[in-house]
Amino acid sequence: MGGPEIERLIQLLSKLPGLGPRSARRAVLHLMTRRESLMQPLADAMANAALRVAACGICGNLDSVDPCSICRDPKRDSQVICIVEHVGDLWALERASAFRGRYHVLGGTLSALDGVRPEDLSIAPLIARLEASNAEILEVILALNATVDGQTTAHYLSDRLKSLGLKVTRLAHGVPVGGELDYLDDGTITAALASRRLIGT
Amino acid sequence: MGGPEIERLIQLLSKLPGLGPRSARRAVLHLMTRRESLMQPLADAMANAALRVAACGICGNLDSVDPCSICRDPKRDSQVICIVEHVGDLWALERASAFRGRYHVLGGTLSALDGVRPEDLSIAPLIARLEASNAEILEVILALNATVDGQTTAHYLSDRLKSLGLKVTRLAHGVPVGGELDYLDDGTITAALASRRLIGT
Repeated sequence: MGGPEIERLIQLLSKLPGLGPRSARRAVLHLMTRRESLMQPLADAMANAALRVAACGICGNLDSVDPCSICRDPKRDSQVICIVEHVGDLWALERASAFRGRYHVLGGTLSALDGVRPEDLSIAPLIARLEASNAEILEVILALNATVDGQTTAHYLSDRLKSLGLKVTRLAHGVPVGGELDYLDDGTITAALASRRLIGT
Repeated sequence: MGGPEIERLIQLLSKLPGLGPRSARRAVLHLMTRRESLMQPLADAMANAALRVAACGICGNLDSVDPCSICRDPKRDSQVICIVEHVGDLWALERASAFRGRYHVLGGTLSALDGVRPEDLSIAPLIARLEASNAEILEVILALNATVDGQTTAHYLSDRLKSLGLKVTRLAHGVPVGGELDYLDDGTITAALASRRLIGT
């Protein structure tokens, strides 16, 4: 078709999540007609990020500086640490602008099925970080996904963290804002009922 | 979130067709965990293609050589030229391996609505190419899309090409292979009936 260069580009692009061979071909044709405005800048941005962005040595966030811009920001609350599974979850929390503390990225969840053990996650560095803080860290929020593996991991962590004398909390379960009861699963409705709040508080 | 490098990469990736901001973020996280195996090779392949791939001066196909590998292949039939709207259509025909002649990419279709006139398409180069062939080219296949604009353009082209003494053909209309009558539009069923073939021919 378009020579080995195009074939290779299509093949690599089709490995991205959400792109198959067909959409990768469409993307390449789109790129080829926008060589100066999109294709070259995208190649540069990708090479640049591959070279300069790395995981933060403290929290595991991705950034071009280490410690990352969140860990080094003096305006962030250093008394609260929010534990997430993946960097994408950290980004989701940042987009919501609802949290002003710091983070710790576990790198996944415990999973008997996939053979993920505590030593495969960033749990030892977390404990070391909490112990080294000299009681500056007062609260740990477990912002793990509400999946079976996420909740198993949350239980395991709360057990491990109990001995450190910290407040350990988790995200509330309930009706998503904008959600309709008719489309919610039973577990969410049960949780939302059990955690009901007095109106006016 | 992940610093300006990540932000820029997400912003550029989300301009690809089929990728929005959310899937661009997912793609970036996917890339960051496959830096050596995917991210760097993809950046290189993209820069390389942007640098080396260009439209063929004869037919308009994209390739790293000019004339393209199809135009310079002595085994291709130089008596038949297949006219397509876009390079993606040429690729689709090549994937089917059903055509062994050469191509001409128009670059779009005539469109009164979008203000696309004959001089905006690669029609003058096509006529020049046919005239310069010294009657070596015997047949022109109009493989334009079966849309209103595609068929308008096919009519216009067949009028223009008539004076050159060529055989001008178009793709057959009919039931797609694997298609079910119940799901076909009336136009296709009418065309398939009108062009019905004797079994055994």
